[in-house]
Amino acid sequence: MITTVVPARLNEDKTKLVLIDQTQLPTKEVFLELDDRERIFEAIKMLRVRGAPAIGIAAAFGLYVCANKIETENYAEFRKEFEVIRDYLATSRPTAVNLFWALDRMTARFDKEVGKSVSEIKVALLEESEAILAEDQAMGKAIGEYGLELLKPNMGLLTHCNAGGIATSGIGTALAPIYLGHEKGYNFKVFADETRPLLQGSRLTAYELNKAGIDVTVICDNMASQVMKEGKIDAVLVGCDRIAANGDTANKIGTCGVAILAKEYGIPMYILGPTSTIDMSTPTGKDIEIELRDEDEIGNGFGRRTAPEGVKAYNPAFDVTEARYITAIITEKGIVYPPFGENLEKLFK
Amino acid sequence: MITTVVPARLNEDKTKLVLIDQTQLPTKEVFLELDDRERIFEAIKMLRVRGAPAIGIAAAFGLYVCANKIETENYAEFRKEFEVIRDYLATSRPTAVNLFWALDRMTARFDKEVGKSVSEIKVALLEESEAILAEDQAMGKAIGEYGLELLKPNMGLLTHCNAGGIATSGIGTALAPIYLGHEKGYNFKVFADETRPLLQGSRLTAYELNKAGIDVTVICDNMASQVMKEGKIDAVLVGCDRIAANGDTANKIGTCGVAILAKEYGIPMYILGPTSTIDMSTPTGKDIEIELRDEDEIGNGFGRRTAPEGVKAYNPAFDVTEARYITAIITEKGIVYPPFGENLEKLFK
Repeated sequence: MITTVVPARLNEDKTKLVLIDQTQLPTKEVFLELDDRERIFEAIKMLRVRGAPAIGIAAAFGLYVCANKIETENYAEFRKEFEVIRDYLATSRPTAVNLFWALDRMTARFDKEVGKSVSEIKVALLEESEAILAEDQAMGKAIGEYGLELLKPNMGLLTHCNAGGIATSGIGTALAPIYLGHEKGYNFKVFADETRPLLQGSRLTAYELNKAGIDVTVICDNMASQVMKEGKIDAVLVGCDRIAANGDTANKIGTCGVAILAKEYGIPMYILGPTSTIDMSTPTGKDIEIELRDEDEIGNGFGRRTAPEGVKAYNPAFDVTEARYITAIITEKGIVYPPFGENLEKLFK
Repeated sequence: MITTVVPARLNEDKTKLVLIDQTQLPTKEVFLELDDRERIFEAIKMLRVRGAPAIGIAAAFGLYVCANKIETENYAEFRKEFEVIRDYLATSRPTAVNLFWALDRMTARFDKEVGKSVSEIKVALLEESEAILAEDQAMGKAIGEYGLELLKPNMGLLTHCNAGGIATSGIGTALAPIYLGHEKGYNFKVFADETRPLLQGSRLTAYELNKAGIDVTVICDNMASQVMKEGKIDAVLVGCDRIAANGDTANKIGTCGVAILAKEYGIPMYILGPTSTIDMSTPTGKDIEIELRDEDEIGNGFGRRTAPEGVKAYNPAFDVTEARYITAIITEKGIVYPPFGENLEKLFK
C-alpha cells in the first residue's frame, strides 16, 4: 500500500470536500473540510488546490457536497440550485480546462438521471465524482506501471517541478513509477530540482516523496549538471503540459535545459503524462506559445526582494523540449519511442 | 568614464576604509567608514566585503588606516603595534588567500622602509595599499580590453554568479569587457543568472550593472536554455575560481551546465580571470575538490523554509567546466584558445 498525499477527497461520511492547503506547504500541513460553495470557490481560486487533475477532482467533489446539502425534494428546484452552484464554481479559475470538464461531466450525469428522485440523483452525483477520482487514479497507475518497466532497483532519478500525487489524485504522472517502485522495495534515490521561481520541486515534490518515505534530496536547478556528472542520476522523469504531434513537449521552465544535460551525459529523458496532453493538432513545439509571467516572481519571490528594485526580469513559465532530446513518452496507453511523429499517431488509432 | 561600485576604497582624506556593505544589497546601499580594527575585522568576517581581490584590497587599506592612527614616533613600538593589527586582521577569514597575500605584501613593504621615520613608513604603507588597488584595476582593464576584442555592439551576453566590480576593485573580470564596451556605447543586453542558492547574480551582478546604466535582465538559472534558444545570447562570460593546466575550470555551481547549453546552441563560452587563478600544478579538473556547503542554504535560504524540514539537500558550491566546453580563456596577458594544455603553458614562459 502506497501512502501518498491526496490533494482532494471526500471525508469519511462523504459530506465534505477535504483539501490539503498547498499554499501552506511545506511548512504547515493544513487540511480544509469544506461544504459551502464560497469556501470551495476560494480554495480553487487561491491555489489551495492546484494541478489540472486535482482541480477537476476538487470541483466534482465540491459540486457534489454542495448539491447534497440542497434541502428540497422538488426536481426543478434541485436542478436550478445545482446549476447555480456549478456556474459559480466554474468562475473560480477562468482558464482551468479540467475544472470545466469535471463540472460538465457532473452535469451530463445529472442529465442522464432525469425523472429520478432528488435523493437518487444525489447518489448518482456522488458516484460520478468518485468515478472521476477513480479514473484519474487508474490513469496514474497505468502510467506508473509502464514507467516502472524502464527503471531498475537502486536507480538515481532526477525530476523537475511537480508532476506528483499532489497535482493529481494520488501518485501523479512523473512520480507514479517512483511510488510503484517504492512499493516494491526498489530503493530509488530521487533528486528534486527546486524549480525556481515558484519552487514546486522543493515545496511539493520533496514534501510528498518524503511523506511517502522515499529517499529524496533537493538541489538547486543549476546543480543538475553536477549530480549527473557525479553518476548520481540514471534517468530523468518529468511531467508535461502539452505534447505536439512530433513529440516536442512543453513543460515547466527548465525542462529543456535538463533534457540537453541528460543527453550530454547519456542519461535517458522520460516524459510522463496522459494521452489527453498530446495535442495532435499542434504540429511542433514552435507552435506552442510560451506564457510570460510576472517579473516579481523572480525578483520578489520569497517575501523579500532578491533583485534590485527597478531591474528587469524575464520570466517564461514553460519551455519546449525538442523531440530529439526525449528518450520516450510514457502514457497510460503505453510507452512511445521515436520516431514520435509516427508513433504518437498510433496511440489514437 | 565608467561609474562602477567600488567595494573597498579610502575616504577623501585617506583616514578611513570605505566599504559598501554587500550583505545589505540589493535592498539597501549602506557605506561603512571604518578606522578601527574591530569593525574592519567584523566587516571581513561577516562578508560585508567579499570576492578575493576585494578582500585583499580591504585588508591592505584596513591595515593602513589602523597603522596610521598609531600614536608613536618610536619605530619599534610602531612595528610591534603594526604586527598586532596585521595578525588580528589575518584571522578574520581563515581561508582567504588574498587576505594573507595583501597583509604579507604590506609587511614586506614595511620591511623595505627599515630605518625610516614612522611618518615616512606610514606614507609608504599608504602607497603600497594604493598600489594593490591600482594593480587590480589595471588587471581588470587588461582582461576587459582583451575580452572586448571578442564582442560586438548590441550583443546579448549571459553571465553567471558575480565576477564584477563589486568582487574586485572596479570593473571585475567577467564583467570587465561589459563595462569597457558600455563606455564605448556598445549597447549590450546582459542577462544575469540569479545564481542559487546565494543569488549573487540577482543581488550583486544585476545591482552593479544597473547602477552603471547597463541594460541587465535577471533570469532564474533554469531559464538559460530558453533565452539562448530565443536567440537572445551571443556569448557567455563567466569568472573562475581555479583553472587546471588542461583548461578545466572550477567556478560557481551551474557554470558547467551553462557551458553545455552554450555548446548545444553554438554560443561561445568565455572564461575570464587573472593568470593567478591558473594552477599549472593541477593537471585536470578531476583533481579539483568540490566544496559542499550547508544544506540550509537551499532549504532555508531566503529567511523562510522553502523545503520541508528534515528533507535532505545537496549543495555543491562549485563545478568544473571541462575544457572541451570552453571557447577561450581571457587573462590580463591575452586570450588563450585551445589546445589549452599547450597554450596556457605559454603564458608562463
